Parts: sequence; structure tokens; C-alpha cells
Amino acid sequence: MAETPVRFGILGCAGIAQKQSKAITLSPNSTLYAVGSRSLEKAKKFAAENGFPPSAKIYGSYEAVLDDPDVDVVYVPLPTSLHVQWAVLASKKKKHLLLEKPVALNVAEFDQIVEACEANGVQFMDGTMWMHHPRTAKMMEFLSDTERFGHLKTIHSFFSFAGDDNFLKNDIRVKPGLDGLGALGDAGWYCIRSILWATNYELPKTVTAHRGPVINEAGVILACGSSLQWEDGKTATFHCSFFTNLTTDITAVGTKGTLHVHDFIVPFEEKTASFSTISQIRFAERALPSQNVITTDLPQEVCMVSELSRLVKSIKEGGSKPESKWPSISRKTQLVLDAVKASIEKGFEPVQVGV
Amino acid sequence: MAETPVRFGILGCAGIAQKQSKAITLSPNSTLYAVGSRSLEKAKKFAAENGFPPSAKIYGSYEAVLDDPDVDVVYVPLPTSLHVQWAVLASKKKKHLLLEKPVALNVAEFDQIVEACEANGVQFMDGTMWMHHPRTAKMMEFLSDTERFGHLKTIHSFFSFAGDDNFLKNDIRVKPGLDGLGALGDAGWYCIRSILWATNYELPKTVTAHRGPVINEAGVILACGSSLQWEDGKTATFHCSFFTNLTTDITAVGTKGTLHVHDFIVPFEEKTASFSTISQIRFAERALPSQNVITTDLPQEVCMVSELSRLVKSIKEGGSKPESKWPSISRKTQLVLDAVKASIEKGFEPVQVGV
Repeated sequence: MAETPVRFGILGCAGIAQKQSKAITLSPNSTLYAVGSRSLEKAKKFAAENGFPPSAKIYGSYEAVLDDPDVDVVYVPLPTSLHVQWAVLASKKKKHLLLEKPVALNVAEFDQIVEACEANGVQFMDGTMWMHHPRTAKMMEFLSDTERFGHLKTIHSFFSFAGDDNFLKNDIRVKPGLDGLGALGDAGWYCIRSILWATNYELPKTVTAHRGPVINEAGVILACGSSLQWEDGKTATFHCSFFTNLTTDITAVGTKGTLHVHDFIVPFEEKTASFSTISQIRFAERALPSQNVITTDLPQEVCMVSELSRLVKSIKEGGSKPESKWPSISRKTQLVLDAVKASIEKGFEPVQVGV
Repeated sequence: MAETPVRFGILGCAGIAQKQSKAITLSPNSTLYAVGSRSLEKAKKFAAENGFPPSAKIYGSYEAVLDDPDVDVVYVPLPTSLHVQWAVLASKKKKHLLLEKPVALNVAEFDQIVEACEANGVQFMDGTMWMHHPRTAKMMEFLSDTERFGHLKTIHSFFSFAGDDNFLKNDIRVKPGLDGLGALGDAGWYCIRSILWATNYELPKTVTAHRGPVINEAGVILACGSSLQWEDGKTATFHCSFFTNLTTDITAVGTKGTLHVHDFIVPFEEKTASFSTISQIRFAERALPSQNVITTDLPQEVCMVSELSRLVKSIKEGGSKPESKWPSISRKTQLVLDAVKASIEKGFEPVQVGV
């Protein structure tokens, strides 16, 4: 039984589900088991094009995936507005959850998901892939090193990509009824997560959105930025946008060291990833930053799927409890996201971050 | 006569004057000619230790330097609070000016300096060395390239260094009566200049300081940040601090390209300097950024002195008018700096940038 792979069922045929299907296929402890779409034809086509094994179950509804007793994990890449409905239903059916980000339209919705997961003893994880790259742990080693990095004082995070005209008119991420959090929910999620990650998930006290966000006619944010302030004086800023060249940066600055990474969301290369560090350099002393290179056999999305399957197996076969870290950091990310949105809506006033 | 080097006189013996003395010595069209200090002994010691030629004039006052008819350019590394007095006096004595930054405590003071320079037909330049590195022109080529970079949408600039306990207690940059603009005037100056440089010196419409600046008991800013907003939707952010590891970043993001530089103020190496660029990469397309390496025989501070001397020779020997670009960009930098300070004083309200 120990070798039985964890069986994934996918709700819908979203673009991101193609990448995730490949990741499930590549993950040694996971297998593509089912896909459901409101259109059986679309589900068949998706399964055929995305490496599902011949034995995979193809369903003409999302419900059928949830009702299949052999599905262990449900992957939910549906629009954010549908998350609470399907995630709660899946957890009631005792399915472990891999939920795309942003996890919900707001933290109140997300709390319904977390409660359902806790009540049903299922593992929750969101689809933030970069968290699982081995580079991320190496970067944290540097940030945790009081000799090389000192104490974190400020972080800047940036995520933009240039949506074309079709994206900016028709993508679900610009539609209020679908992914209504727009660029803040899509790109800003990563920025906020990276900032929380760097602070060891210490919530900021207040958030103040920057003036000048871009908001479309339907009220969806297409670009915005924010400052974050912590009780102890730490600060952070981020900027997210659908309008500019693909850029994914974290700059973390401590009392003794600095970390730069320019491809934190998707590494420039699949098998190697790097970040640069520099420590305790006085002004006018000349020294070059260190390039830290990490090699990995598995892409970060495969690492993510494998980690989720490891936790699921441990629950199923070892009687472990679900790992609470993952829903906890999803919730904190959503809390900060909600505060940024509230600050924009309140005319860029500072907003206390909820708990 | 064409080979006569431009003769520099230095007011005071500040630390930065050591670096500048070396630059003047290395500059082919410039020569160290005089130094004045309130203490003749200090002036003698400074001249002996900083490569002044035996013929150099050593004075026991600043006035004596200004009264020497053979001094062409006066370099003013005095505390900011003394700039307006000595810069105006120097220009009245027909001395061209190399003035340390921040150029004044506020733009009203700086306007007195500019008026005096204009009335007396002398060249003004501030001591922002990185502007003169050949890399800076190469970076501007990229930012101006509508194919590789597109149109500038956002810029982030960062400058911090870690002052030790002695610096934080005793340096003139933490004293309200001396360099009363603190980290904003010292480090923030560079951030603001880099942002204006990237926008081709288009002034932002409004400036909103970030919450959470660090201000000492005497009211001097030790760390702060700000957002800037332009009429056309461009945005920028910067952060400056006396508390964190030496970090000097510009990130400029356009519709089609991104530029990163991590040593814009003092290059990591003296003879070569680099910046990285990446263009038109779609999400999930993998490509590595280009490393652009520029070599230079002369350090940037020597380039600065040489450019000033070239302008001065052109005025003295060719009858040219002073180059108005340099006082103009100093003034714009000061205008934005004033607005950031005003925003902090007004409780982080947005402040219109003056003209």
C-alpha cells in the first residue's frame, strides 16, 4: 500500500491545469486520476491532451469528481468566485485540497473553506509553486543568518506581466464576477506571500495602498502597489501590474546583508535557479555579490504536488493530522490582500490588518 | 592656453573632499589649486595628505579661497546648512561651483544659489557622481529603446547603508543644524535623482511619503520611503535608510523590458560596471537576462570633475554659456525631496510637487 500514488481529480480545464497535470504526472507519489468539466467533451479532450492514463475517469460535471470515492485530492483551478462553493463541497466529501490562488474573494470566504477542511480532517494547500522550490529554503537560510543578513528591516516585491489587448479585455482576471481581485489577487498574491515569507509570516500592523492604481471600468484592479508597516518598524512595499514586462523580484534588506532574486515566481531556468547575496559591505568598500546557484531535478510545481501527496499519504496511511502551516499562510496572505483592497477603497488610508 | 588645467579650490576638509581631491588629481583637465579651512593647520594637513602639488595655496579661511583670483572652481563639501551662504558668495566672486548634495535645505535656498550663478555667469554642478559613469548613458540607451524597453511605467530605487553607533549619534547627517535633511537628503537624494533620471526629468505630480519613517529625537529623518505619481500614470517608489546593509538599486520596468542595477551609486568594481536587462518575455517563457558590462578607465568621480572642467574651459576660453542642465536637474531633485519631507510633516498626505 505504501507505493500507492495519491490520486488527483481536477475540476475544470483551466489553462493552469495543464501545467499542474504535467506536475502530477511527474510527481513520483502522485497520479492523474480524474477530470470533470461541465462539458464531457472538453474533459475528454483535456485528458487526452494532458497525459491522463487510459484508466483515468472522465466526468461531465465537477460533482462527479467529488463523488468518486477513489479521488484523494481535488485540484481546484476554477475562478476565484467559485472557490468557496467547490472547496467547501470537496472537503465535505473528504477530499484533500489543492486550491489555486487567490484562495478566496476575502478572508471570510476563506474561513469557510478552512473550517470545512478542519471539520473533515483534510489537508489544504494553495497553488503557490515557488514556495516549494529548493531555492526558497536556501534563501531563507540566508535571511535567518544573523551574521550574514542580520535582522530584516525592509522588503520590496514586484510582480508584473504584460497582458495583451485580448487578456486585458477578456481574461477572467479582469472580470468582476470571476477573478474580481484582478492584478492584486493574481500578481499581488505572490508579492504579499513573498513579503510574509521573508518576515516568517509575521502579519504587518497596517497596510497603506499607494495612490495611482489602475482600475478598469468594471472596477477590477489592473495594477496597484502598497506599503506595509510592522509594529517593530519593519516596512515593505510591493507593486503588481498587468501592464509591464514580466518581472518577478524580491529585495530583502537586513542590518548586515541584502538578498536579490529576479525570477522568484518562475525561475529563468528549469534545472538551476540562483539568487544573489551581499553582506556587511561598508560604503566605498568594493566587493561583488555572491551568486548562489541551486540545482533541482524536479520543477517547483512537481515539488509542490509531491509535498502535498506526502502529507496526504501521511494522513491516510499514518494517521497524521493535516499540516496547519499551509492554510495558515494562505489565510495570512488573504488578510493582507483584503487590507490592501480596503485601503484602495478607502482612498489610500491606512488599514489595520485583521487577525 | 588650451592646455591650462582648470584650478579647483576646496572649502573645508570634509571626508568626501578626500575622494574629490583624488578625482581632481586624476582628471586630465583639472588641478588641485587651493584649500581653505577655518584652521590653517587642518588645511596644511589636508593638502599634505591628499596629493596637493607643492605650489598649492593653503588658506586659513574659506573667504581666502574665494578671494584668490586664480581659483576657477570652488568645491563645497560643507554641511548643507552652509551651502546657500558659501555657494552664493562663491558665485559672486565668479567662481564656478561643484556643490555637494543635497544642494540646499529647500528649493527656496537653492533658487538663491541658481540666481547668483546665473547673474555671475558661472557653471553649477552638484556632486552626484554616478550620473557621470559611462554606464549611466548606456542604461539610458536601453530605457530609451521603444523596442527593447517600451514605455517606462514604474521605477523603484533603494539606497541604504548601515551607520554604526558613532555615525547615528555624531555624524553631521543626524544633526538638525548641519545636514538637517538626514537620510532623505543624503541617501534619498540619490533615489530621487535616479527616478527623475529614468523619467527624463519629468517631475511627478504628487508625492506621498510612506508611513513608518524613522526620525531621531532631534527631528532628523534616519530612514523613510515614498511613492511618486505622474500625470500619465507612471509611478515610482523609493526607500532610503541609515540602518541597513549597503544597497543601491534601480529597478525600471517598461511595457516591454526591465532594467536592474544593484550598484548604481558606487559600482562594485572600479574599471567595469554592469546592469541587467530583459525584454518582452512572456510568462513561462524561459530566458536569461542580458548582462551588460561597461568598462571605464576613469572612475565616475573623475568623469564628473572632467566634465565640469570641460564646461568651465568652454566658458572661460570659448565664450560659451553655462550648461543649464545641471542646475535644472539639481533643482528638480530638491523639489521632489522637499515634497517628500512635506508629506512626512503632513502625516503622509499627498503633496503636489512644486515647479
